[in-house]
Amino acid sequence: MRSFEWRGDKLAILDQTRLPGEEVWLELSRPEEVAEAIKKMRLRGAPLIGVVAAFGLALAALGSGARTPDGLLADVREAAELLKSTRPTAVNLFWAIDRVMGVLGKAAERGAGVDELRRLAVEEAVRIADEDIQMNRRIGMHGEKLVPDGATVMTHCNAGALATAGYGTALGVIRAAVEAGKSIRVIATETRPLLQGARLTAYELLKDGIPVMLITDNMVGYVMSRGMVDLVVVGADRIVRDGVFNKIGTYTIAVLAREHGIPFYVAAPSSTLDLSRSSRDVVVEERDPEEVTHVGPVRIAPEGVEVFNPAFDFTPMRYVTAIITEDGVFKPEELIAYYSQSRTEGPR
Amino acid sequence: MRSFEWRGDKLAILDQTRLPGEEVWLELSRPEEVAEAIKKMRLRGAPLIGVVAAFGLALAALGSGARTPDGLLADVREAAELLKSTRPTAVNLFWAIDRVMGVLGKAAERGAGVDELRRLAVEEAVRIADEDIQMNRRIGMHGEKLVPDGATVMTHCNAGALATAGYGTALGVIRAAVEAGKSIRVIATETRPLLQGARLTAYELLKDGIPVMLITDNMVGYVMSRGMVDLVVVGADRIVRDGVFNKIGTYTIAVLAREHGIPFYVAAPSSTLDLSRSSRDVVVEERDPEEVTHVGPVRIAPEGVEVFNPAFDFTPMRYVTAIITEDGVFKPEELIAYYSQSRTEGPR
Repeated sequence: MRSFEWRGDKLAILDQTRLPGEEVWLELSRPEEVAEAIKKMRLRGAPLIGVVAAFGLALAALGSGARTPDGLLADVREAAELLKSTRPTAVNLFWAIDRVMGVLGKAAERGAGVDELRRLAVEEAVRIADEDIQMNRRIGMHGEKLVPDGATVMTHCNAGALATAGYGTALGVIRAAVEAGKSIRVIATETRPLLQGARLTAYELLKDGIPVMLITDNMVGYVMSRGMVDLVVVGADRIVRDGVFNKIGTYTIAVLAREHGIPFYVAAPSSTLDLSRSSRDVVVEERDPEEVTHVGPVRIAPEGVEVFNPAFDFTPMRYVTAIITEDGVFKPEELIAYYSQSRTEGPR
Repeated sequence: MRSFEWRGDKLAILDQTRLPGEEVWLELSRPEEVAEAIKKMRLRGAPLIGVVAAFGLALAALGSGARTPDGLLADVREAAELLKSTRPTAVNLFWAIDRVMGVLGKAAERGAGVDELRRLAVEEAVRIADEDIQMNRRIGMHGEKLVPDGATVMTHCNAGALATAGYGTALGVIRAAVEAGKSIRVIATETRPLLQGARLTAYELLKDGIPVMLITDNMVGYVMSRGMVDLVVVGADRIVRDGVFNKIGTYTIAVLAREHGIPFYVAAPSSTLDLSRSSRDVVVEERDPEEVTHVGPVRIAPEGVEVFNPAFDFTPMRYVTAIITEDGVFKPEELIAYYSQSRTEGPR
């Protein structure tokens, strides 16, 4: 399953707002179109947003009419600002943009011309995408060891192929367990308001032939109390020193998991880490009330009702059993120690 | 706000499946129509189901062509069986039916004729409805003392005028606090799958001018962690020795409330008590998967996905701060002591 396709001078994306009903591909040729697609959540998922933003910069470089490296860099920088403004919480967006800008900045310093800068922007975006898939496979490899044969795994939202360049983070762990020959069942929470669990996770897993049962978000406690869940695996939008930002509802599940003695794992690439910050530094995006008051065209709440619609919540580290990255499985305190050390020691 | 109206030989009900978009009243003249309306959840809420079932028996008595008391009783008994088969979990349904049948049985024993039996059936149904409103006002009177001025109260599903003969149980507590001059805000969980919080509770409270904020069910943990909730009040479908059956999602909220040190109250008339039974004796109704896979006409999940759709969950007493009945506010252990005693001592 692919969430996007780079077509040399255009980025084709699968419009996730139309799933599972229709598989509609959109071709984007300008960074403004990429920004709009991210904002409207035609694609979503922290890693995928990062990858696609990188391609947005590549499109900016390709589309720039500048004749000097400085002019081209200014055009790309403008696109970077636009893309960074789309969604404030997931950190991979900023990470990927900074990475492309860093490559272009260094190349310009050593005297690269506009054509080389264009080529480098595309190459870096492609590299980020390829690396994302590789990282997910390594997350899967490490994570599947935590999944016993015969287990039922609960997951929230969609941290699958549709949230990444491919394979998925939380669903990557599940896929790797299945590839290792284990018999795995998934319980997917529907994930209101935008229903990524019902629309995307159920769809992805059904396509792969992995047994999946759909529940509404408020059934989490009941299914856990009935002994129906062996472990929870979710993705992450940003991991800070004191905990994990992820799709709204994650914290509710984490508290219930601890109450029932069920392991709660977070699977995410290291590009999701922002360990120099703590939760108080992070802005939780609040989205349009209509996402709550409407499902598709159907109004489900009276006119004029006040709505709270945070897109994410924060799960303190004390609820997290372990975090799975491409580098291994870490208890929260180990994660901070490992990545602080590896940073001071330079690139891994 | 009225949920039904007795029109002498017909029962008019507000079709709650059409709210909040349209206020459609349906006239029911046969017990089969009443049973169908309960099953399809055109009206719902444990107390209201009980009241309406009693009117279903009245309609059976009025519509019976029997010329003997035994013949009439047989017709009413048949309607009672049908009505009891509609929904298995809420106990008020069985309580109300047994109460009407008891009155008719005793009257027949002392020689009442068919006309008197018909009149008694209607009178008992009207009495059950009137008493329900009175009990709710007493629940409100006791419960409002637990609600501080300026409090934000979370409630789940709809335990309001639309779940009862009027005034409501959980919303009765909120209404009584407002009537006592307190400034109260409500956070209503939308309550998937059938969205009674979004469709009914928000609608009721807006009509009464009580400030209400709507959230999706998975936001409960986050709003509690942000200190936005002072107490929780919910209704109940059946209270047994070891805990409370109520709308799916209640248990999830109760666990989160305890984790955050927030009082968790259950408001219900004593007709909801079934203290001779424990949770293992109660059947949790499972409903049509389409309630989860569709919102109105909109399909939100892929074809063929497996669905779990329990209508209720069970909250063990250790999560319940107190239970509010028409007789007062009781800690769980006090509730059992009080009602066991008052039962052996005869009617209160």
